[in-house]
Amino acid sequence: MDVKELYENINKYMNKKVTLSGWIRNHRKQKEFGFIDFSDGTCFNHVQLVYDNKNKDFDEIQKYHNGCAITVDGKVIESQGSGQDFEISIDKIKLEGDCPEDYPMQPKRHSDEFLREQAYLRPRTNKFQAVFRVRSVTAYAIHKYFQEKGYVYFHSPIITASDCEGAGQMFQVTTLDLDRVAKDKKVDYTKDFFGKRSNLTVSGQLEGETFALAYKKIYTFGPTFRAENSNTKTHANEFWMIEPEIAFCDLNQDMDIMEDMLKYVVSYVLENCATEIDFFDKWVEKGLKDKLNKLVKSKFTRVTHEEVITILRDADVKWEFEPKYGEDIAKEHEKYITEYFNGPVFIKDWPKDIKAFYMKQNDDGKTVAAVDLEVPGAGELMGGSQREENYDKLVNRMNELGMETDSMEWYLNLRKFGGCYHSGFGMGFERLLIYLTGVENIRDVIPYPRTPGNCEF
Amino acid sequence: MDVKELYENINKYMNKKVTLSGWIRNHRKQKEFGFIDFSDGTCFNHVQLVYDNKNKDFDEIQKYHNGCAITVDGKVIESQGSGQDFEISIDKIKLEGDCPEDYPMQPKRHSDEFLREQAYLRPRTNKFQAVFRVRSVTAYAIHKYFQEKGYVYFHSPIITASDCEGAGQMFQVTTLDLDRVAKDKKVDYTKDFFGKRSNLTVSGQLEGETFALAYKKIYTFGPTFRAENSNTKTHANEFWMIEPEIAFCDLNQDMDIMEDMLKYVVSYVLENCATEIDFFDKWVEKGLKDKLNKLVKSKFTRVTHEEVITILRDADVKWEFEPKYGEDIAKEHEKYITEYFNGPVFIKDWPKDIKAFYMKQNDDGKTVAAVDLEVPGAGELMGGSQREENYDKLVNRMNELGMETDSMEWYLNLRKFGGCYHSGFGMGFERLLIYLTGVENIRDVIPYPRTPGNCEF
Repeated sequence: MDVKELYENINKYMNKKVTLSGWIRNHRKQKEFGFIDFSDGTCFNHVQLVYDNKNKDFDEIQKYHNGCAITVDGKVIESQGSGQDFEISIDKIKLEGDCPEDYPMQPKRHSDEFLREQAYLRPRTNKFQAVFRVRSVTAYAIHKYFQEKGYVYFHSPIITASDCEGAGQMFQVTTLDLDRVAKDKKVDYTKDFFGKRSNLTVSGQLEGETFALAYKKIYTFGPTFRAENSNTKTHANEFWMIEPEIAFCDLNQDMDIMEDMLKYVVSYVLENCATEIDFFDKWVEKGLKDKLNKLVKSKFTRVTHEEVITILRDADVKWEFEPKYGEDIAKEHEKYITEYFNGPVFIKDWPKDIKAFYMKQNDDGKTVAAVDLEVPGAGELMGGSQREENYDKLVNRMNELGMETDSMEWYLNLRKFGGCYHSGFGMGFERLLIYLTGVENIRDVIPYPRTPGNCEF
Repeated sequence: MDVKELYENINKYMNKKVTLSGWIRNHRKQKEFGFIDFSDGTCFNHVQLVYDNKNKDFDEIQKYHNGCAITVDGKVIESQGSGQDFEISIDKIKLEGDCPEDYPMQPKRHSDEFLREQAYLRPRTNKFQAVFRVRSVTAYAIHKYFQEKGYVYFHSPIITASDCEGAGQMFQVTTLDLDRVAKDKKVDYTKDFFGKRSNLTVSGQLEGETFALAYKKIYTFGPTFRAENSNTKTHANEFWMIEPEIAFCDLNQDMDIMEDMLKYVVSYVLENCATEIDFFDKWVEKGLKDKLNKLVKSKFTRVTHEEVITILRDADVKWEFEPKYGEDIAKEHEKYITEYFNGPVFIKDWPKDIKAFYMKQNDDGKTVAAVDLEVPGAGELMGGSQREENYDKLVNRMNELGMETDSMEWYLNLRKFGGCYHSGFGMGFERLLIYLTGVENIRDVIPYPRTPGNCEF
């Protein structure tokens, strides 16, 4: 039986015998009694196991260290002490796996840095146990949202020969023997596995568009890779992305979907990870729960980039970076804008020169139908756009940017073969998790993070 | 509105005005009438749109080619013709995106080979529309099964420095400039992105075990990679795997879960993709639906590898490959065994020398607690094992196999730090899809397949 089942149906099990398997998180030994803080990992809550010296195995049990795996038979009883409603009085206990006294995960507060070095053990701590369960439940909430609305889950390819979003930041994938390359003093891609240079995907959007024009509504949810050599709290080189794409959908409808999805996912997590959110609220980010509850009830504001710049320039603030029409905005500006509107803000119609080639060109000739969602306390959480559906405009833009169009024929053809107005957006999964948990460093919301120089486990 | 919504609530919409956006799959023009076979991709069913020369746009509509994107306003009426219960009488139609007459996806039967060359357009055909919707629904069924049973979804890392399952078959990931390597005549991995050689994962199991020993029940569902240079119907170099891992679970319980999960997923697909399964049953694999319904009701047999060899050797069959104790079995043997037991068969307790190092060594000293599930008409669909939880036995086995243990310290430590008996299994997602759809070639169940020499789109 799982501890989760016990908590959910405690009345059913009260005063009954149960058998549980799990781990000793903390063992407090007294002369005539013992208390075991026990977890089986199926829910955030632990169970207190109690025994006394009337138990024939008393001396044996007292030898069990923190970290041991055990199977316990006992009776569920009302708790004598404070801190829990019930506890289990041990009849019999079996040691499944021992644990040495120098086990690194002792019941005390460890630093995040220390725990990153022990990444394979950190899900055994309260904090990371909570983080990675929230990760799992959030992933499921995203699938549930899109599936129930009839979206098709599309697996975009991971290895790709396309490099249209910037090859400089891509990881190369190869089966060439590099020692051989060094020895032969030449690189022959015709001998590589795919007969040409190939890379890890940086985005599944372009391929996603091909499926949106067949299924109307699709989403991706898979790993993406950027070989950026930056060591910040918000960058990892391997991360998961969600990229929905919707045919017959303009920028306004795109924003409706972004807002609806985010509220759904946050509500789902509040409801299904209540204990974890309470924990984060208490120990990781004070006010987290209010922040999330407020988001769900917020009206998201929609303003243009130009309006934002005007607001910023009119503000009585000394900026580190001066806000300028036609240019990107800085973190300090994002923060001001969400405070100004007291809630999430969609900033739309961005200057075309700072946005991607595939975004729909607005009639003003200066902006594109792109949108970023700025969320209080998180900054940019999602970015989307209506896609340029006009073949000629798209080709012209690619030519302007010096992009090669031959290898993109399939993408361009989508505009010829029953193309239609369509939109989509991207959400970094880890960025959402940082927002949901209050955890600050992306390394702490990915089981085994990949960052420059770090590829352990 | 979606066509799916229309089909699911046809009574509500009968004799009402509706607006739909989607694509012309076939346009049959007559002198005074026209019939448009219309699909919006939200369900397998199409809708018939009808118009006559009383419509003021009659001449304009008649110009619309197959493949065009349209938005149509019309009235839902009972169908005059056979083949459908209702149709839509067109009031107004708007051309969203034109399509040339030489559009490759004309309404006729195309070969799978031709469609692979047009992979970005093939989801617009009935067959592939059905395949990739089943892919999406099946993925969701798998998540739903595990999440509802309290499993934690674990994202195993894609880029890994571990090579313990055979580096020869791995793709290398690098940011080294290969031209530079050729020029410098040496490979310096300290200059590579992670400071050492790194690869694409071939399995998330070992990392999955670390999380199973924290959460009790976990599953992975992500892409995996094998650089095998083989061009068969069942091999792709990039594919998706599901790898559940369960603590306090022996081989028998592992088989219980494999059986339960498979039955759940097949039932879910039968229920939620009934139209698609009917289509496959009629056009792709006759008897598919019976096969799937039978599986759900089957009792799965459990036999040992040794028993299987005895049955094969006693059989009155002239084998191409002679069945031998202590050796692997061939496709012809798998087929015979599922026919012999008239249903799915778990073959367990395999000779240790043909199985992986991490599998639990049985007391006989010759076999390991491994299991393969053989399914009629599919062969091996899943493989699992109880894992060796004894530290010394595991290290000895790795030494026997000449494996390096230093970099695997974290994996070995799982046996020291509260280790316990635990088991898991792996299922190739595409192999399951081949079984569910009757489609024979793995290239036809992956949106953009990667095979030797092929990395298009």
